[in-house]
Amino acid sequence: MNVNRLKMQIEFIVEMDKLKRVVRQTLLADASRQENSAEHSWHIAIMAFLLQEYAEVKPLDIFRVVKMLLIHDLVEIDAGDTYCYDVTANQNKAEREQKAADRLFNMLPPDQSEELHALWNEFESGVTPESRYAAALDRLQPLLNNYITGGKMWQKHGVKKSQVISRNQRIEAGAPDLWKYALELIDDAVAGKMLSE
Amino acid sequence: MNVNRLKMQIEFIVEMDKLKRVVRQTLLADASRQENSAEHSWHIAIMAFLLQEYAEVKPLDIFRVVKMLLIHDLVEIDAGDTYCYDVTANQNKAEREQKAADRLFNMLPPDQSEELHALWNEFESGVTPESRYAAALDRLQPLLNNYITGGKMWQKHGVKKSQVISRNQRIEAGAPDLWKYALELIDDAVAGKMLSE
Ligand SMILES: [Ca+2]
Repeated sequence: MNVNRLKMQIEFIVEMDKLKRVVRQTLLADASRQENSAEHSWHIAIMAFLLQEYAEVKPLDIFRVVKMLLIHDLVEIDAGDTYCYDVTANQNKAEREQKAADRLFNMLPPDQSEELHALWNEFESGVTPESRYAAALDRLQPLLNNYITGGKMWQKHGVKKSQVISRNQRIEAGAPDLWKYALELIDDAVAGKMLSE
Repeated sequence: MNVNRLKMQIEFIVEMDKLKRVVRQTLLADASRQENSAEHSWHIAIMAFLLQEYAEVKPLDIFRVVKMLLIHDLVEIDAGDTYCYDVTANQNKAEREQKAADRLFNMLPPDQSEELHALWNEFESGVTPESRYAAALDRLQPLLNNYITGGKMWQKHGVKKSQVISRNQRIEAGAPDLWKYALELIDDAVAGKMLSE
């Protein structure tokens, strides 16, 4: 056993714990508090294998999807969670997250740093079917929680239907049937006054 | 698309959200609060692929390990988290968790209910190399967080070295090198007065 290699891995594993303290603009389904990015990542990782039949391209490498989803938000440990409707914060998001990915993944031995960089780059670039399906789930879960909680966060931030549509229509490319379902939720949210036109 | 099938899947996905409210007897690495079972499951799922070189049997089906770890605590939605050093609560734990598994997994379409039952049963029975490696990570992560936080939870519950050893020695069967590492942490915790002899 290479003691130094294990030491690097353990230090990264301890560092990862910080994602549990990154709070997102989505409420838990019972609206008791905002969720954090670690539990969000857990949720969508399970969704990835439960909903794989709705992926646009099949079969997919679902394990790669799950790995992407588990690690995709780690960069928020340094860069914070950038609220998707915050235009200013989104301007330098890519740069902040790239720096974070470099610092964090380089804590690992080179082969694993490379693997995590590759997974994260794949997720971010969205060019593979796996990354498009992964991105669809990353959008669907907050939409679902927003819907379930009566749209509290949409109202708090004054978010409109058109913004929800443009933010979430990436679901279509990864999982067209889930986008149909999402559009039903959105229409229902408007009809139920949870979301304004 | 089978609308009823998707409806069942979405209802299960919303139900899963409750695991984010199941609080464990482990602190976050910065000791700011206790962790919940959803973020714990996220943490060990990533550990599963980062530490796979230490598994007793190689190669393993690491995706099955990851799936097991992601879903293994879902039963706590009904059964609660049973603190590992609580003798009384552990007496009817298996029965409570079996009931929970039946109710929860049966929310899904039959094929997926069967898959989750199988994964959970495999994890619980610990007879496959995958389930033994998974169990090792499920033990190692709280041990690591207890160590990192100076043993606050060991002290709070008056847990002794011998109890930590007997609780965690299952790590050995799944990942012998990680057990060696864990024993070093435990000895160091005793030397540093974080854990009593
Ligand atoms: Ca995300």
